Amino acid sequence: MRYDMAIIGAGPAGLSAALNASVRNKNIILFGVDSPSLTKTAWIDNYLGFTHINGNELNKNFKKSIESRKNIERSNKKIQQVYAMGDYFSLMLKDNDIIEATSVIVATGIDLKKDLENEDEFFAKGVSYCATCDAALYKGKEVVVIGYNAESVEEANFTSEIVGKLTYVNMYKNDIDLNPSIEIISGEEPLEFIGEDRANTLRFSSGKEISADGFFIIRDSSKPERLVPSIAVDKEHIIVDKNCRTNIRGLYAAGDIAGRPYQINKAAGQGQIASLDSAKYITLIENGKYEKDFWNK
Amino acid sequence: MRYDMAIIGAGPAGLSAALNASVRNKNIILFGVDSPSLTKTAWIDNYLGFTHINGNELNKNFKKSIESRKNIERSNKKIQQVYAMGDYFSLMLKDNDIIEATSVIVATGIDLKKDLENEDEFFAKGVSYCATCDAALYKGKEVVVIGYNAESVEEANFTSEIVGKLTYVNMYKNDIDLNPSIEIISGEEPLEFIGEDRANTLRFSSGKEISADGFFIIRDSSKPERLVPSIAVDKEHIIVDKNCRTNIRGLYAAGDIAGRPYQINKAAGQGQIASLDSAKYITLIENGKYEKDFWNK
Repeated sequence: MRYDMAIIGAGPAGLSAALNASVRNKNIILFGVDSPSLTKTAWIDNYLGFTHINGNELNKNFKKSIESRKNIERSNKKIQQVYAMGDYFSLMLKDNDIIEATSVIVATGIDLKKDLENEDEFFAKGVSYCATCDAALYKGKEVVVIGYNAESVEEANFTSEIVGKLTYVNMYKNDIDLNPSIEIISGEEPLEFIGEDRANTLRFSSGKEISADGFFIIRDSSKPERLVPSIAVDKEHIIVDKNCRTNIRGLYAAGDIAGRPYQINKAAGQGQIASLDSAKYITLIENGKYEKDFWNK
Repeated sequence: MRYDMAIIGAGPAGLSAALNASVRNKNIILFGVDSPSLTKTAWIDNYLGFTHINGNELNKNFKKSIESRKNIERSNKKIQQVYAMGDYFSLMLKDNDIIEATSVIVATGIDLKKDLENEDEFFAKGVSYCATCDAALYKGKEVVVIGYNAESVEEANFTSEIVGKLTYVNMYKNDIDLNPSIEIISGEEPLEFIGEDRANTLRFSSGKEISADGFFIIRDSSKPERLVPSIAVDKEHIIVDKNCRTNIRGLYAAGDIAGRPYQINKAAGQGQIASLDSAKYITLIENGKYEKDFWNK
């Protein structure tokens, strides 16, 4: 199935992008759940049009704007990776389904939690972000899941049925429903990975260590370059131009992931800018009228 | 009187800028009246948070957001020119009053009407945008006022008491209240100015001509470089970076005047971006901690 536009993230930037593309009659798939940084904010005083509103209420108003539209499909599936194919993108979902889209808008927000030490160095060398994808590599072996969210619990349960031994480092919440075979470490703060060619040990800030064949880090969002290989970034932000275009043609970024300030009106504004430019791009592609200097001008 | 921030324009960009600066406890003066391009829009479907809302209603919601704030002063006076003085700006008002502000945000919107031919060439050589300012130069002489708005009627009445003869080219509306001494031309479309060193003739598209010593064009907004000398522009837009900074330190632009798309969420987002960066700039200036590479980094 090829959509006109895939939007990754359903915070203010993603919702605004969906709304604007819908008004332009594009065929849209919107991935993601409510933005916690919006819904958990007690009071918002600086989104123009609402006066001293609770974050959850504002989010409801945002969703109402797009629920009335007919051409927006929603999905809660997580995107594993985005591949640029030229005139379209392939999006690999966590369940290994693939969908296609002519244009993609990345509006994942930003995770203010810092990486663990050596996390980048050992990425794909014993450190992975998708247990579902890579569990088969660790059949009968020992793995550690560092879990920050509900998804990490599902991932740990699934993976525990494949691997030899699974230890879950609980960064999520007190009461979690894990398979009995899973060993749980609580109250420890993961600090760094240790190893030579591959990570083989996780050290906690207490000094305690745990060794394993593989480590899975399951948190809400990860670095943009892990989602989209070869995306140009400036530290944690995707580099965008004034139309919110990235270095990859057809691919846009909007909201916190595209830079500061981390604010709602700014995010919604960028979602709009990205979406309207993307709609123009999609029309050119669909009419066979795309010329290669469009993107770089 | 020196304000922290002067905002020129009260459309979505200016209102959002005022709201955000107010939340940051800055002392603000906001110039301008309701944006006609907003209030005259029948239906708006793509401002996130409102579903299919009338432009006038949306504007009311926008104004409600800022009416509850205490540190925003409003003024309907027109700004004649903005002068960069280093650590502050002087704003010359139409009545020749001057106010000062540490930072300025230009959010005037954009006038889609085209200039008359040779208007730029003869600017300050027989063509002017402020009758109140320049009427004294034409004492006893013949002038033409090309009037597009209510302000032009006031300007014509005032000027007619100083000059020898005043002709009003009516581009505004049918029923206007002009002094009896003023001659009115209606139903003609001004086309171009003619002259050698100075404009001495206005030609209409009908071919008809009128000669005079000076010509005043009174329309809602004029080119940014007429408002702010030495501002860097790209055709009709002020050039801004990702923080909405212009080439003049302390001066920002947001909304339609800062480029396409001409959309409300984009304008409100840019107003927010400009305002938050400006608040940072103001604090540096006020604490004597401004360093000169701040602006260009």
